[in-house]
Parts: sequence; structure tokens; C-alpha cells
Amino acid sequence: MTARDLDDRAASRSVRKPTMADVAKYAGVSLKTVSRVVNQEPHVRAPLQERVQAAISALGYRRNEAAARLARGAAMLTLGLVMENISNEFYSRLAAAVESAAAGHEALVVFGSYEESADKERMLIESMYARGVDSLIVVPSAADHAWLAEHASLTAVFVDRVPPGLDSADVVLLDDVWGGRAATEHLLAHGHRRIALISDDGAVSSVRDRAAGYRAALRAAGVAADEAMVVRGVFDPWRVAYEVGRLLDLPDPPTAFFATNNRAAIGILQALRERPERPAYVGFDDFALADVFSPGVTVVRYDVTRLARGAVDLLLNPAPGPRRVRVPVELIARGSGELPPR
Amino acid sequence: MTARDLDDRAASRSVRKPTMADVAKYAGVSLKTVSRVVNQEPHVRAPLQERVQAAISALGYRRNEAAARLARGAAMLTLGLVMENISNEFYSRLAAAVESAAAGHEALVVFGSYEESADKERMLIESMYARGVDSLIVVPSAADHAWLAEHASLTAVFVDRVPPGLDSADVVLLDDVWGGRAATEHLLAHGHRRIALISDDGAVSSVRDRAAGYRAALRAAGVAADEAMVVRGVFDPWRVAYEVGRLLDLPDPPTAFFATNNRAAIGILQALRERPERPAYVGFDDFALADVFSPGVTVVRYDVTRLARGAVDLLLNPAPGPRRVRVPVELIARGSGELPPR
Repeated sequence: MTARDLDDRAASRSVRKPTMADVAKYAGVSLKTVSRVVNQEPHVRAPLQERVQAAISALGYRRNEAAARLARGAAMLTLGLVMENISNEFYSRLAAAVESAAAGHEALVVFGSYEESADKERMLIESMYARGVDSLIVVPSAADHAWLAEHASLTAVFVDRVPPGLDSADVVLLDDVWGGRAATEHLLAHGHRRIALISDDGAVSSVRDRAAGYRAALRAAGVAADEAMVVRGVFDPWRVAYEVGRLLDLPDPPTAFFATNNRAAIGILQALRERPERPAYVGFDDFALADVFSPGVTVVRYDVTRLARGAVDLLLNPAPGPRRVRVPVELIARGSGELPPR
Repeated sequence: MTARDLDDRAASRSVRKPTMADVAKYAGVSLKTVSRVVNQEPHVRAPLQERVQAAISALGYRRNEAAARLARGAAMLTLGLVMENISNEFYSRLAAAVESAAAGHEALVVFGSYEESADKERMLIESMYARGVDSLIVVPSAADHAWLAEHASLTAVFVDRVPPGLDSADVVLLDDVWGGRAATEHLLAHGHRRIALISDDGAVSSVRDRAAGYRAALRAAGVAADEAMVVRGVFDPWRVAYEVGRLLDLPDPPTAFFATNNRAAIGILQALRERPERPAYVGFDDFALADVFSPGVTVVRYDVTRLARGAVDLLLNPAPGPRRVRVPVELIARGSGELPPR
């Protein structure tokens, strides 16, 4: 090797990283030998090993860890979780639970939040699919999902709601009708007859089922349903707080509330901060701090890890036919649901 | 066309969807003509148009909307957001804010949560990168991030913490030192001298900076720092509640607490439910319901949308040199930080 060669090498070193081939050439050994030394395989004779190590030092060669890991990253099973609204605690709990369930199968999870927009839901699913994520867990919007059937290689499992237009879909649901009924019966058992219902999107199956449970309990108790006591389509706690105030200002106000989700229960808490009345209320979905208030918030609760594990199990064990898994719910009395009527 | 041909066609229709080519053959026109009719292009003569429409009806042809949309899905700019723990409200708020900031640029966002595991952080980033997500917003773990520099085509911006080992990184930070100092000065101004610090991962720059602000305020007030008043490495509110109880049981207990994150503040709330003492406390990070408790929780708060928008702006406007953006924080007095010493 001439001085000129070395200068050239030094110059080229400054513009690109040395490769294994450079090391082999410099050391005068085969590429296979360099690979063996770099990967610490046995059966390389000591003098050869030393020559390769000297070349590695001289050239400043570094094994391309990044490329090796990147290949592994691409190969890892990645599940997509598509949710309605990540700022709602239900979804952040679900995301953490899916993450944990997937980790048990050495799978990674990427999440997407469509912020109550069915168009964005579809774009998210298609973007994930186009990027090689073909196993999806979806909390579906109320829009038609028939288009999903056209992606033959996509495996999707649905959580919390039945996707409209996809009769063949596997779905993991809560026992919503039972929960709505149990919440309402609990309030009836504590003497309430004017029980208001606060709910969000009535086009979504879980919300509809919780309301159906509420109506069934009233019917069974011989209490006539009063549409003036039913509030639909409120998502934001502040809107809920406004509606609660409005109902309490009626000439014949409710003495109790059934909130069909955590945001509605939080809205009730916010409304009552400003009001003298102490109506009873039961929420659907547990939430952080529900037990720290005084009185504690009585809720219909469930184990979100069962929702997550159910979905991951269905996803990783494909089988024909629509499968439905129902996760049980339970009523946890903490005080707010046991207050008497005025 | 014979009856046999039609039967064959009917049979084949049941096993696969008709294509544009089938429509062209059935109508006896060119594929180009079918394409023009399907895509509602002008300049197709009426009789031809009618023949194509008749063939479309007869065969039950449907345009492959899915394929067209899928191509768009792959083309859409998708940002990756990699976070420490999605079940922490800070991250779900950040995720929603990044989602909203990205929507302003017609970009989609996929999230990943590494659940406090630096290995999983790296796998998530590499999996996203391998799937074509090359614009990343990362809330980094305390591990070395030098490996990221090897992915030349990856653009990453960091949020909330400085990534160790990546001096050239663009970072959007909160004014953590100022916030820690303001919280502590507030408690000092209300007469407290025994002020405990509850914090999580001390290896993370934001936590370190908040603690530095706490120490600076004590020093400026001539109050000697007492290591017995400092709790580090507690993440879970239940662990925090235990530590708060332990400190309150000391012979010379704290009369006030500074919680360096939302989980620590929630842990204090939980601990105080079971205790007779009414120590003052200030939290860092606002959280849902912080204003509904009585007294309300005094916090150091900031606009999470500014963190998100700052990160998206840096990401979409690449420029040389490490850029640091500081988002201001403010102290919101709600009652818990204004309680007097016993």
C-alpha cells in the first residue's frame, strides 16, 4: 500500500463510513473472516483475529447496529389501535391495556385517535394498513364500515361497539344493557322515580344499549319514561354541567342521574360544585379520583384489561364466523348513588 | 354471447368481484371508455355511456374506492408520537394536542407508548421508521439516544425533556426551573418552612429542573434543604400516597408538599383522604377535576397545545442547529397551596 493509497483512504473515510469490505481489504483477509470476528464467532485463528482488529482500529470501523436493529423493527408484529378520542380517559386506559396485552405476545402497538371524525377514522386505518400494519383493533365510529371488507389481508377486531355494516366482524363488548339496567335499578331501589339519563352519541351501539337498560329498568318498576329527563348528544363535561343545571331548574326536576359515560359523570360533578341540590348519580366507566370525592362516585365498572386481552386474543387467533365476547360489568357503590331523594 | 357464457360469468361473479375489464368486455367497448364513464369524465357519447352503465348494472361492478383511497392513505404525511406512558393524563393531553396541531397541516398521527422501557422506546421508533414514518415527536426516556443520529432520513423533535446523547436535537421544553421555583416560593410565602418534594425519575431533565427550582427557592429564602423531605423515584399514585403518609408520621413532618407531576399530586389527594392533617400542596401539571376538589388543587400549569404546536412547527420546518423552545408555565392558586402551616 502506497502513501497515496493511504491518503485516498483517509479522504474517503471523511465522507463515508468504512464498511466490512474496507476492513477485509485493509487486513488482506476474506469478508467472511471479518464478519466472523465482528460477530464474535469462534474458530478464527489468533493471528487473523489480531490483523482484523488492527484494521478495525485503523479505519475506525463500527458495525452497523442501526441497520441490524432496523430490520428487526420492520419484522416485529405491530398492532394498530384506532380510537375515538385519546383525551378521554376510557381510551388512554384501553391503550395502556392493549399495549400490555400485546407485550405479552412480543408485539408493539401504534395508536391513532380519530377525534370523533369518521373520515379521519378511515384515513388512519388506511394509512396504518398502507404502512404494513395489518392487524387492527378498532373502537368504531357510528359510520358504515362495509369498505373495510375490501381489504382482504387486513384483520380487524372491534372493541366496545358493533361496527355498522360489517356483520362478519369479531367484537369485544361490555355488558352494556345489564350495566344500564343495574345503575337504574340501584337508583330506583334508593327511592328515586325522577331519574335523568345523560348520554353522548346515540348512534353508537354501546350508548344505545346502556340507554336500553335504563328504559328496561324503569319499565320493570312501572315508572313511566319521561323524555324531558333524557339528554342525548352531549360529549363535553361542560355541556353536561350546563344540561344538569337546566334539568335541576325544571319545575319537577330529577332527583337522580344516570351518566352513560365518564365524561357525563365528570360533568355532573362539575355542575354540583355550583348547586345546593344533592341529587344521587351513578356513572358508567370508572375514572381516576372517582373514589376520592366525598361522597365517592358510584359507578358501573369493568376490567379494561379484559376488553384489551379479549381483542388481542381474537386478533392473534383468527377463526371463521363473527365472534362476540361480552365482558361483565359490576356496580360499585361509593356514596353518590345511595343519596336519598330530597 | 351464449347462455353457457352467461352462466360461466354468473358463476365467476360469485367468486370474484367484476373488474373494469369485465365491464368493457360485456359492453363491447374499450377499457378507456369504461374508465371515463366510471370517473365521470366528459366527452363520452350518450349511447356509449348507456351501454357501459347497462354493463355495470348487469355485472354489479363497483369502482374500487378502497384501492384509490389506500393510495392516498400511503401518501398522507404521518407523524409518529412516541411517549412514555399513555395512561398518564399528561400524555393523553399531549397526544390529543399533537393530533390537533397535525390536523392543521393535514397530517395524521400515530402514537406509541413505551411504558417507561427504553428498549421499547427504541423498538417503537424503529418499527415506525421501518414502516415509513420518518417524522417523529418523542418524549425521550433517560437512556442514551445517540443511536438515533444514525438514521439519516429520520427527522425527530423532542418534547418535555432533553434526549441524552443527542446534542444536535431540537427540543420543546417547559420552563421547569421557573415552575419549580414558583411553586416553592408560593408555599414559602404562605409561611411554610418544612416543604417536602415528591418526584419521579430524577434522570429525566424536566424532573431534575423542577427539583433544581425547588432547591433554588429554598436557598434564596435561607431555608436549609433537608434530604429527609425529598422523595425520588415514585411513579404510581399509590406509592406516593404511602410516602406522604410516611413523611406525615415523622417526628418533624412537612407542613407542605411540592409534587413535581400530576401523579404525585393525585397521590397526595389520595393520602389526605385517610389523614387528619391538612398540609398545603402545589402540583406541577394541571389535571381533570383539579378544580372540583375542595380545596381546589393549586398547580403549575401550561398550555399543552403550545408544546404540541411547537413540536409540529419544528418538525415541519427543518433548520440546522439545535433549536430550543421554552413554553412558559404559570401558577394557578385554587386553595390547596394557600393553606397555612399547622
